[in-house]
Amino acid sequence: MNERVPLVGQPIERVEDPKLLRGLGSFVDDVHRDGMLHAAILRSSVAHGVIRRIDVTAARAMPGVHAVYTAEDIGAVPRIPVRLFPNEAMEPFRQPVIADGKVRFVGEPMAIVIADTPALAEDALELIEADIDPLPAVTRFEDEVAHDALLFEAHGSNRVFDYEVSRGEIDDTFETAPYTRRERLYVHRHTGITMETRGVVSEWDAAAGRMTSWGATKVPFANRKILAGMLDLPEEQVVMIEGNAGGSFGVRGEFFPEDFLVPFAARKIGRPVKWIEDRREHLLAVTHSRDVAADLEIACNRDGRILAIRARMQMNIGAYFRTSTTIAPRNVGQFMPGAYRVPRYRADVAVIASNKSPAGTYRGPGRFESDFFRERMFDLTADDLGIDRVEFRRRNLLTPEELPLAFPAIAPNPVVTELDSGAYEKVLDLCLAKAGWADKQHLQGKLVDGRYHGLAVGCFVEGGAAGPRESARMVLESDGTISLYVGSSAVGQGVETILMQIAADAMDLPLKAIRVFHGSTTYVKEGWGSYHSRSTVMGGNAVLLAAAEIKAQLLTAGAGLLQCAEQEVSYQAGRVAAQHGGSVGLKELAAKGIAFEATFHNTKHTYTYGSHVAHVAVDAETGHIEIVDYVAIEDAGRIINPLTLHGQAIGSIVQGLGGTLLEHFVYDDEGQMLSGSLADYLVPLATDYPNIRSSSIEMCPSPNHPLGAKGAGEGGTIPVGGILANAVAAALRDFDVQPKALPLSPDRIWRLVQAAAARPA
Amino acid sequence: MNERVPLVGQPIERVEDPKLLRGLGSFVDDVHRDGMLHAAILRSSVAHGVIRRIDVTAARAMPGVHAVYTAEDIGAVPRIPVRLFPNEAMEPFRQPVIADGKVRFVGEPMAIVIADTPALAEDALELIEADIDPLPAVTRFEDEVAHDALLFEAHGSNRVFDYEVSRGEIDDTFETAPYTRRERLYVHRHTGITMETRGVVSEWDAAAGRMTSWGATKVPFANRKILAGMLDLPEEQVVMIEGNAGGSFGVRGEFFPEDFLVPFAARKIGRPVKWIEDRREHLLAVTHSRDVAADLEIACNRDGRILAIRARMQMNIGAYFRTSTTIAPRNVGQFMPGAYRVPRYRADVAVIASNKSPAGTYRGPGRFESDFFRERMFDLTADDLGIDRVEFRRRNLLTPEELPLAFPAIAPNPVVTELDSGAYEKVLDLCLAKAGWADKQHLQGKLVDGRYHGLAVGCFVEGGAAGPRESARMVLESDGTISLYVGSSAVGQGVETILMQIAADAMDLPLKAIRVFHGSTTYVKEGWGSYHSRSTVMGGNAVLLAAAEIKAQLLTAGAGLLQCAEQEVSYQAGRVAAQHGGSVGLKELAAKGIAFEATFHNTKHTYTYGSHVAHVAVDAETGHIEIVDYVAIEDAGRIINPLTLHGQAIGSIVQGLGGTLLEHFVYDDEGQMLSGSLADYLVPLATDYPNIRSSSIEMCPSPNHPLGAKGAGEGGTIPVGGILANAVAAALRDFDVQPKALPLSPDRIWRLVQAAAARPA
Repeated sequence: MNERVPLVGQPIERVEDPKLLRGLGSFVDDVHRDGMLHAAILRSSVAHGVIRRIDVTAARAMPGVHAVYTAEDIGAVPRIPVRLFPNEAMEPFRQPVIADGKVRFVGEPMAIVIADTPALAEDALELIEADIDPLPAVTRFEDEVAHDALLFEAHGSNRVFDYEVSRGEIDDTFETAPYTRRERLYVHRHTGITMETRGVVSEWDAAAGRMTSWGATKVPFANRKILAGMLDLPEEQVVMIEGNAGGSFGVRGEFFPEDFLVPFAARKIGRPVKWIEDRREHLLAVTHSRDVAADLEIACNRDGRILAIRARMQMNIGAYFRTSTTIAPRNVGQFMPGAYRVPRYRADVAVIASNKSPAGTYRGPGRFESDFFRERMFDLTADDLGIDRVEFRRRNLLTPEELPLAFPAIAPNPVVTELDSGAYEKVLDLCLAKAGWADKQHLQGKLVDGRYHGLAVGCFVEGGAAGPRESARMVLESDGTISLYVGSSAVGQGVETILMQIAADAMDLPLKAIRVFHGSTTYVKEGWGSYHSRSTVMGGNAVLLAAAEIKAQLLTAGAGLLQCAEQEVSYQAGRVAAQHGGSVGLKELAAKGIAFEATFHNTKHTYTYGSHVAHVAVDAETGHIEIVDYVAIEDAGRIINPLTLHGQAIGSIVQGLGGTLLEHFVYDDEGQMLSGSLADYLVPLATDYPNIRSSSIEMCPSPNHPLGAKGAGEGGTIPVGGILANAVAAALRDFDVQPKALPLSPDRIWRLVQAAAARPA
Repeated sequence: MNERVPLVGQPIERVEDPKLLRGLGSFVDDVHRDGMLHAAILRSSVAHGVIRRIDVTAARAMPGVHAVYTAEDIGAVPRIPVRLFPNEAMEPFRQPVIADGKVRFVGEPMAIVIADTPALAEDALELIEADIDPLPAVTRFEDEVAHDALLFEAHGSNRVFDYEVSRGEIDDTFETAPYTRRERLYVHRHTGITMETRGVVSEWDAAAGRMTSWGATKVPFANRKILAGMLDLPEEQVVMIEGNAGGSFGVRGEFFPEDFLVPFAARKIGRPVKWIEDRREHLLAVTHSRDVAADLEIACNRDGRILAIRARMQMNIGAYFRTSTTIAPRNVGQFMPGAYRVPRYRADVAVIASNKSPAGTYRGPGRFESDFFRERMFDLTADDLGIDRVEFRRRNLLTPEELPLAFPAIAPNPVVTELDSGAYEKVLDLCLAKAGWADKQHLQGKLVDGRYHGLAVGCFVEGGAAGPRESARMVLESDGTISLYVGSSAVGQGVETILMQIAADAMDLPLKAIRVFHGSTTYVKEGWGSYHSRSTVMGGNAVLLAAAEIKAQLLTAGAGLLQCAEQEVSYQAGRVAAQHGGSVGLKELAAKGIAFEATFHNTKHTYTYGSHVAHVAVDAETGHIEIVDYVAIEDAGRIINPLTLHGQAIGSIVQGLGGTLLEHFVYDDEGQMLSGSLADYLVPLATDYPNIRSSSIEMCPSPNHPLGAKGAGEGGTIPVGGILANAVAAALRDFDVQPKALPLSPDRIWRLVQAAAARPA
């Protein structure tokens, strides 16, 4: 009898941590190669303009400089592709690897300098003379149809793409509905800020014709494919190594211009080249996200039951499409209904180009924004109808009996995805109870300790488990341990530990018998990486498949060694035993060459869900918002490791709070960024939000795959903006302050209070 | 009739600010002189040792290096004097300007390098070989009587001085008292961290035989006297210029070794020399403060009335006496009773030397510590006796009828000082009311939002107005405006604005008619600077005296011009008018040479007082303490400017919170500092403590001088440690956690909770 306690479900400390905590991690800047040179990038200081001339003569002549390359030297190279949901109509708007003819945002690469040291390379940038004829900068939504400043002249508008999302016919619902309301709401531009900036080290092996690049993260296989295409190499001749990374959050998954420019230079010069981004470059040129406005309409019965929602949205994607630029405008349209019953729905999402850094994904892409729009509208509607705000949600939350339920249809590039399982109202009740909601209602709008108190609640769903495939390769080593090679990426989320737990249980072995390898395109044939909260589900199921096959191989091999039929042997705890009593261990079995690479296929998403309650205290004199209490409960399906999951939830909520209260890319009318340092672009500090209480529970496992997990890296972020804004509105109800845009920074709250005070009674 | 509204009492915005906010301030690093060289200081990396040899040959030979000086080159120079309350017995323990024979703390200067640039000077430090025989380091109180590691061999102990403080005879009070309790309590080492580090620029005028030093702050006249003595120059031949400074807080008032070494080098080389401290040097070698333990005993009646307090204290002053080292050990002994009735009192304060940076004053020196000891003991005592903690204080607070009351006698160097005026219980009641004390008692020890809530209250007094003198010189300029030259120092507290308000009222003129000059030893014959919350009282009264004399001179001159008797003229709003109708203005009168330098003498202190209430929420799982609400009320006597006073109060409370919760100089057993950067030595950030509500009121003006003000720069800091610790104890009462030492850092609170949980029930 097997008395083994499963490792899955246990709060096992991360195996990744001892190395990282002792400073033994290897980040891209820790990579040193013999004869390595250093790169610096000349970036446009003009938001929009025509390049007349770039004179690099003086820079090339500077001692210590090995090369200077501009578009002219680089020649024809494919532009950066749209990796996710590409569409032919996006072709003209894809980003070139180096500005050619025109610059379209401050920070756009115009030249790369290779020199003996980073300092020399930077000094040489000063010697390059770039002659640019400036054009008017497009930075605002009001400019969207301005034809006198077109980013792409051949296209007659800065509106570069459109999505249509629909469920049911809206017909005359809005004319006949007992209640309707319309609001314009806005979520500002911000993005994920990783602990360390980006970087690339590239080495060209001329003899083998092979390019090796360090610094890839999140989706190394996908980026390998792109790079191979640009370098005109077979994919197998490009090796991408990811190393450690201080966070991913979307921005790490891009293929950026430097991901081409650095290997290009390394091959051309024949020496390894390193480029490490500085923080200003990071803020200027990394993928930004959010920056979307919605004209939102809701139609309800008088009892608060939703009849329809209609939205016209404009998403400002910046200067170009990049690999993941499509995700946020798709999601903001398709996922607006969330966990609620919205019988009729229509969203038109206009994708607008502007002279800002190109947009991509950021934790909960599109979902953070649509949750803000929806939950904000819900509180305004409930107040109008005189219905309690919790009751309003109860009446519209989907019941378990209504699931699975497909999300509205999206076009073009349709994707069908459905809510898998969930007890939405039950988790709402748990969250309200834990937050002491009922006991605290007397605080709503009340002045206590000099601050106005307010509470709000919201419900969210988070999509996970994006397909199509993931790989895991298991090899039984001669010492009887298992080497597990995976295509999932480690971006700080603890995926090594998770996959070890799953593999150890599947193989009925202790944790230490499993060794995980990840982060190199040499480990498996194909890998898909980490995004869309997919690693646990996709990687974990691939491990289960590999283990099943390995155990089958063990039984075959064991039966052979024990000289009996396969039906007469069984596997347990690292031994194959025969019914007649003999047994062999993994060391002996290893000689038989036990190994298998499994691929898990999946097209169905998983939907972690939950509720958050925020209790805020607002200082009406300074606009400062204090988080008195923040309670989150999410049902993440099968929980592999409650400790790493809790860390994900807390970190995710803190990023949501940062994005709601602090983080903001501000551009002036000339397209110059005014928040180009961490003194201006504020990120949350360790001491800012200590009062977060988050619980992850295991209530409704996903029915869509064997593991039952749902993936849960982004849920914490998604609902924060809407809930915080609602809590602030509740706190300041006597002022009738109704925030309709983020961020909720002190100056904005203060202005809302002042404006409210100035309104005639 | 004069309809003028007095400026004193009005919230006038600081005249200092427009310049500073536009980056036009002139801090010491902004000073540039022709031909200026740069200094770097070689500091001991050994806490305690005998210097065998310092070889500077290679450093001197380095290109760009102009000079390297060690003790050998500098020769016999007087050691740094004890400026405040010097005593002959302290002579052996005074700090030399450069280590000679022995080093006694990590950071002690051993050599100074002068080079073309700061970088070259620092590089040259690397070439100096210092051969030091290490001795055991003395860092702990337990080492105080260890004779095997003596800092000063000729003195048989590291206990280098003793103070005795007493009021009444203790006799057998403690044997006969109905209730006694004894506790050992400790306040950790921390100090004031100024925005910019220290610095000195010195220029020697060989022709005039005059030394000019920029960078002096707080007490430029006193430091001029010290420097003149060391350079063997007449005082008049030394000019000290203070410039702008980002805070004082005690540490700025010292005479540090560099204040001699830099001018010494400038004279020797014959070129100006600049030295700017880096942050590590600042933390290592600036004056530290606090670091005092108390064995405290209290004797009470059963009704909570205090019979006696007895204390044995040890203050760890570090390696040497410096100019202000005496203040904290004196104050911690003498001011323990605070605003309370303590009929019998005795304190023995042992001053202990150790291998740490020498100690000096820090905002509320000795008072912060004694308030922690006293208020902590009061809550423990009240709990023992079953008396409400507010009621316990009420029974022991002095009544207005008991004032003035002298503090206990101190020896040696006795100083008599008395509480001047105050309605202590009234302000306590105001504070309790504002904090909602009664309504919040149900929260005590209660778990709300995942944190344990606790409230505590305490009462404090703050000494101000230290004598003996202060100077102000008024000159009527030919354009009819007044130039006011003062001996007070500007250290960020807004003294310019304050003195302008006082002068404008006294002269019946608008604010803009007054021009204030401060910050140079050339402006007045003698000045005493800014410390002990003295500038408003001492400087302000000097201004009043000068104005009175100027008005007398104006009347005399006016009568002459108007050709009538002095009794027939009067002064109002810048004009001298005759009874018969004629009048003359200040422009005309200026031709008569109107000017006067006044000196205000004072031996009586003022005592601002007040109460604070803290409401904290403690996370028992992480040890994090949140300040939910912090209410302070102080009566500062006559208020000159409520705006600047409020700024002082808030800043002072925040420093108290920083010192209580974050700031901590940690040394290891070898005397190496483990908190030598602002990543390790944590100071409060702008976002850390937003919930402070402070009111300064004008209830009992000081009867001791004409202005009635009391000085109020330090009161905010003084009571914070005791009140916070009491609030934490209240929050964690169910754990029986009783903090007896500061800081209340998360790790320490967590350990207390763990230890409490581990105790048998």
